Parts: sequence; structure tokens; C-alpha cells
Amino acid sequence: MSLNERLQGMTNQDVKQLDRAHVFHSWSTQGTLNPLAIKSGEGCRLWDFDGREYLDFSSQLVNTNIGHQHPKVIAAIQAQAAELATVAPAHANATRSLAAEKVLAHAPKGFEKVFFTNAGADANENAIRMARAYTGRDKVLSAYRSYHGNTGSAIVATGDFRRVPNEYSRGHVHFFNPYFYRTEFWSADEAEECQRALHHLRRVIESEGPASIAAILLETIPGTAGVLVPPKDYLKGVRALADEFGIVLILDEVMAGFGRTGQWLALDDFDVIPDLVTFAKGVNSGYVPAGGVMISEALNRYFDDHFFYGGLTYSGHPLAMAAICATLDVMAEEQIVENAARIGQEVLTPGLQRLAQQHEVIGEVRGLGVFHAIELVEDRQSRQPLSDAAMGQIKQHMLDAGVLPFVANNRIHVVPPCIVSAEEAQQGLAVIDEALSALKR
Amino acid sequence: MSLNERLQGMTNQDVKQLDRAHVFHSWSTQGTLNPLAIKSGEGCRLWDFDGREYLDFSSQLVNTNIGHQHPKVIAAIQAQAAELATVAPAHANATRSLAAEKVLAHAPKGFEKVFFTNAGADANENAIRMARAYTGRDKVLSAYRSYHGNTGSAIVATGDFRRVPNEYSRGHVHFFNPYFYRTEFWSADEAEECQRALHHLRRVIESEGPASIAAILLETIPGTAGVLVPPKDYLKGVRALADEFGIVLILDEVMAGFGRTGQWLALDDFDVIPDLVTFAKGVNSGYVPAGGVMISEALNRYFDDHFFYGGLTYSGHPLAMAAICATLDVMAEEQIVENAARIGQEVLTPGLQRLAQQHEVIGEVRGLGVFHAIELVEDRQSRQPLSDAAMGQIKQHMLDAGVLPFVANNRIHVVPPCIVSAEEAQQGLAVIDEALSALKR
Repeated sequence: MSLNERLQGMTNQDVKQLDRAHVFHSWSTQGTLNPLAIKSGEGCRLWDFDGREYLDFSSQLVNTNIGHQHPKVIAAIQAQAAELATVAPAHANATRSLAAEKVLAHAPKGFEKVFFTNAGADANENAIRMARAYTGRDKVLSAYRSYHGNTGSAIVATGDFRRVPNEYSRGHVHFFNPYFYRTEFWSADEAEECQRALHHLRRVIESEGPASIAAILLETIPGTAGVLVPPKDYLKGVRALADEFGIVLILDEVMAGFGRTGQWLALDDFDVIPDLVTFAKGVNSGYVPAGGVMISEALNRYFDDHFFYGGLTYSGHPLAMAAICATLDVMAEEQIVENAARIGQEVLTPGLQRLAQQHEVIGEVRGLGVFHAIELVEDRQSRQPLSDAAMGQIKQHMLDAGVLPFVANNRIHVVPPCIVSAEEAQQGLAVIDEALSALKR
Repeated sequence: MSLNERLQGMTNQDVKQLDRAHVFHSWSTQGTLNPLAIKSGEGCRLWDFDGREYLDFSSQLVNTNIGHQHPKVIAAIQAQAAELATVAPAHANATRSLAAEKVLAHAPKGFEKVFFTNAGADANENAIRMARAYTGRDKVLSAYRSYHGNTGSAIVATGDFRRVPNEYSRGHVHFFNPYFYRTEFWSADEAEECQRALHHLRRVIESEGPASIAAILLETIPGTAGVLVPPKDYLKGVRALADEFGIVLILDEVMAGFGRTGQWLALDDFDVIPDLVTFAKGVNSGYVPAGGVMISEALNRYFDDHFFYGGLTYSGHPLAMAAICATLDVMAEEQIVENAARIGQEVLTPGLQRLAQQHEVIGEVRGLGVFHAIELVEDRQSRQPLSDAAMGQIKQHMLDAGVLPFVANNRIHVVPPCIVSAEEAQQGLAVIDEALSALKR
């Protein structure tokens, strides 16, 4: 029986059964899973195998910035598939060259090349590798409240010569990034939080020994950690510390980049130019797996006559590159970044603030563009995170009402596609409102 | 200007210039690169942007097992793109469920689930993670002559809770695998090489402390290291050691799997059942980035009630899954695995042995199916590897003659697609013959 014949007439129950029989899932206990079955989508809408519609307020894993099934991007993938689906990274390919050109058009000033990877984790892997080679130092400083991907052993398991310059993931040190709502620094206000967080980072650098530190790696806006928009001057302060101590600054734009914040890159809001930028997700909405590193002049020049000890089979994969070219064109033509900014300013920020006035359970609302989080608490005094059981109730209520939420710990991340309309954004907010009203504690 | 308009009329020179301006390459010194520009392909043939044809004797990075642009696989990717290009891994999707079912149809007996990844590196990452969780031990033993991927730091740079159970790539130990042509064990014959390699592995296990060892990770046939077909009983002996000491055995079939050796999995030739199998490349010929871990019953059951601390955004990506379903169907329908076996037996093995009789520079020929290597030496007595300059001459000669080779160190890996015809295989061998005859030393 052909694949199409098998797929015809499958119900949610069939798909779930087959999934639970054969598919091992990320980040979970396998025995307790009850996944939603998703068949198809369009724009901000998804449908299951029984024809039920969902409004996607998650962008899946915050990646479908242009929404589902944009016809121009789908057509570009199909056209590239018809021409050449795959090619080794050592060869030159026009679609890859153009994708690099288009990515660099949105990079900070002075950025020169792109190294393509399969996703965000290996983008960060290779940015760290570049920083270590360039500085001749080992340590990487990053924030406790961060997620930079999930890989950590393949190169060390490797036996051949490529292991040696990359051996062991040595010298990782974590520091506290600013998070005023749950300050680690006993700050009285945002300005003090910024100043003290920078002082803390300086003390960590001094205590670790600046000459041992290759890189500071930071999500421009820590995403999974809770959409932690940094105080206005924090990243500028980090840049100054990196300059003072000769450290490479890597900004991770995997989740925040390519429209999510209402800017092409989240760093565009913070008056900071890093040395390397990592990206994935929004660059092609995840239509084909892809990520990469944007490389500034000094690092690029270094590798003109120094061997780079990194690589991967699907670096610059033609289908992924075609999806990048089309996505970036569509985002510009249809002013999708501007839409994300407008929906943030006109609907999400005021709408979530209104919800915070109505629901005691909301401890804080933060974010910009289509990148917001509401933090739910047992009570506003203690700020104790809302229980998992209550969060489960809220999630179920939203699903029952046909809205697909992104729930993380005690937070709802409000992260629809960047193309979301004002009406769809209002619809999602109304369901959050209902779910919070219905909450039984 | 649209992407299609830009691509029209581009020459090799245009594409190379754009590539060198914007694209950072794997495993190289950027300043000295002169990549081949590849535009399109079909079967075992590729064309550059000036219309020149190449016979692909590399399968790119040994991944296009079904050749370039198989129409049924291209159609399946296009159809899935039209339905749903991307979906979060937490949801169930029919194409993913069917891909898992089809992969498991070729797994060893008793295998139950598949965890999908983006490629081979993160397949090995997650197999190691599973072995560590399951055994409660840390160390991973793998061979010096091996390549298991290129990732090693993202999870350690991560700050949040997902770092802790995965922190530092701790306790990697390397041992010598059998390689009779350059024996590490002063063996007199293949049987002695096998016996002594197993004794060496036992001594490493005993010396490291068996209770500290989570996994033995081995390429069934080490690929990039030189297509090192192990002695017939080696893997059975490794399995016995793993059993004796309660160690998880992971076989890496990223390069050797899915038809390359003339079997569905390379392990089918060796009478061994591992606990985990990793795969990528051939499973869908790399048409869309994908990899994964096949999971046997005991490990699968363990994670029914233990949390799995691993995951990735594009796990089970629909386009990759559609390509897997179609590729595995096509390979069965068109008896592509059987073709690889036949071409190996009837053309490559005898043809390469004939070349070895004619050319003193060939030190050894080894391999099976469409997975062969010829090892070139300065002289047969010393077995000193042929110089890089001479290897460069051979590579250039083959390219000039329209054959795309896979050259690694002092070896030519003879790795055409599994669909290669007898005529094409003969054509490639003839060009190798010419290149060796023309060699000036």
C-alpha cells in the first residue's frame, strides 16, 4: 500500500496509536504521553486528523514565524526538490550562496559570512568552536537561565584527529543574567538590576581569569527561560566587558531572531554588535531543518589562513537554503516583521496588561512583538510559581477551546506566528482570559 | 528579482564567487578553497552550472544511496510540503509514525521504537544519553579509528535544568579496533587480529572498571576511517564482552546502513544484535536532513517510566519523514540493496583486485557492496601512506575525467550510489586506473 493510501482516512486515534507504538519522544516519560495528532495547517491554523481546528499560539516550538504552509515558501522547497535535493557542503551551490547573502542582509554591520548547520544546537556548537580557535582560550560563560541546545558528546566519542582540537566540552561557567521579577541581586529597580548584573558578570570574569575565557554566549532575549527581555543597557554593558577582556561575544538568536520581536534580529533593539550570531527556527520557519552562524569580519579573516575543525554532512542543505531564500523574501515583501511589531504594540502588550489587571494569578507580563510571557503565581506577594496541576488545567482548557498554547513551567508563552492578525491575537487572548477565569485552586 | 530569476543564467564562476564571498565551509582553511559548483543531478550523474557532467563516485558524503533526484522520493517530499512542512515533535503525525514503522521493519529483532534526530551526530548524542540513563554509568568506549559526529558543547553551555543530567561529556575512553593491514597487535593473520583486538578491548574494560562503563559505541564498519571491515567474529566478541559486563552496545550505522554494504544494515552481515542502532544518511539519502536511534526492547521499556532528558526542535520533521517513507519503499520495490550487493560482488571487488595487481601503489583493497576503499602507499614494503601531493594529482585527474571521487588521507573510497549500474561502476574504475597510471612521483 502506498504512503498516500495509508494516510487516507487515518483518524486521530490511528495516528496516536501508531505514534505510541513506534515513536520515542523528546523530553518526556514515554509511558504517560497523550500527544495531539496534527495533520495539516495554514497560516495560524492547524487541523487534526478528525478535522478539528486549532489556533496556533505556540508557533510549534516558536519557529513558524511566517505561519504554516506559506505558498511561496512551499513552492520554493518544491522547486529546489525538483532541481537538486541534496549536495555535499564542500561543493558550491547557488541556492546556498544566495541564502547566505540574504541572511547577511539582516546581520549587524561588518558581518561577512555564514556557516550553515542543521539547527540551533549545532549553530551554538560551531560558534563556540570558532571563539575557542580565535582566542586560543577554553572557557565559555553563559547564563543559568538559558537554553542553547542539547548536544554534548559526539565529538568526544569520535576517535579520529577531528576529536583532538575539540576534545571535552571544557570550561563551561554559568552566571546569573538579569531577571528583575525574580532578582538574584536584591535590586530595587530595573536600572539597578542591570548595573548589578553587569557587576556580577565582571566579578565572574575576574574570578575565572579573563585570559581563560573564549566567549560569552547569551540569548539576546532568553526564550525558553521565560522571555526575559534584558534591561535596555545590559547587552551594551556585556559588549563593553567582552571588549575590555578580549572575549568573543556570541548572541544566540535561535528563538528571538527573524521577526519574533518585531525586528529582523532581537539585537536590533539593543544597540549592540556581537562577534557571532547564531540562528535557526525563524530563518525559514523550520520548514526544513536549518541553522547557522553569522560571522563578523575579524573572525572570518582569522579562518582565511587557519583550519576550521568543524563540519557536518547537511551544512547548507539545498532544500533548507531554498526555504531560507523564500522565507526572507516573503517576510520583506509582506512586511511580516512590521506586523509582529504592530501586533505586539497594539494587541498583545495592552491585552496582556489588561488580563493582569483582571487576574490575581498573573504575576508578571513581559515581552515585545509576538514574543511574550505571562508568569503565573500562587499569590503576588510570595511570587511562588503556580502549581503544575493548575498549569495543566489551564493548558487543557485552552486546548479544549481550540487554542494550542506554549506552556513552560509556571508560564504561558504567548508566541503566535509573526503573521497573526489582530482578530486571531484577540481570540487567543480571550481564551487565556477564560482559562484563567475557570481555574480552580 | 525572484530567486528563480537570480538562478537563471548563473555560471560556475558566478556561483563560486558568491560562495567564496558569503559561505563559510566545513573542515577547511577558508582562504584556499576552490569548490566545484554543482547545479543538479539525476541517478549517479551531476551537472555543474556550465553544463559539465560528473559521475558521482562519492555519493556526496556517502549519503545518496538511491542516487540523485529519485522521482518518487522527490514527489513524496513535494506532497508532504503541500500538506504540512513542519510540526513540533510533541505532536503525533502520521508520516512520522509510518517512517518509524518502516525503519523498524529493517531493525534487528526485538527493536521497538525510533527516536528521530536531524543527522548522525545527534543520533549518537542521544544513543549515548540513553545508555547513560539506562545503566546509571558514565563512560563511553569507542574506537580511535572512528567518526561519530562533531558536537560537544551546546548542552554544557545551556544553563537551565536540562544541562544537569547531561553535564560535561565525561568519561570518554578510546581503544584500538581491528585493522589487520596496519595492525596494532602484531597479528599474523585476520583471526589473530580479531582475537587480540578483543583481548585488548577486554583489558581496557577491566582497567577502566566495568561498573563505570555505560556504552561501547562502534561503527559497524568504520567508514571515514577507511572502510575497515571488521574480522567476521569481532562484533560477536564485542557483544559477548558487553553482555559479560552489563554494557550497552551501540552500533553506528550512519554511513554503513541502509543499503551501502549490500544489506539493509551492515550489521546483518555480522550475526550481532546491539542494544541501540544509530542511523542517518542512507535512510533517506540525505534528501532532507534526518537521523535517529533505533531502540531495543529493554531500553525502550526503561523509558516508559523514566524521564528522557533529550530532544530537539526538528525531531521527526515531516519532510524528512516523508523522504524516509518513500526512500525505504523505493529501495525495496527496486531492489536497490540487492543491486549494491551484486555490483560489489560482480564489479567492484573483482575490478579493484585487478587494479591492485596492475598498480604497485595500491597497498590494500577492502570493502563490500558499494562501500570499498583502496589504500595507496609509497611502497608495499613499508606501507607508508602515499603523499598528499600524489593524492591531490589523483583527485584532480579523476575530476578532469568527469568522475567525482571521495578521497580521504591516502585512500580513495569507492562509494557510488547503491543504484549504480555495472557500466557506470566500470567507467569509474577505468578512470581510477587511468589516474593511477598517470601518477607522477
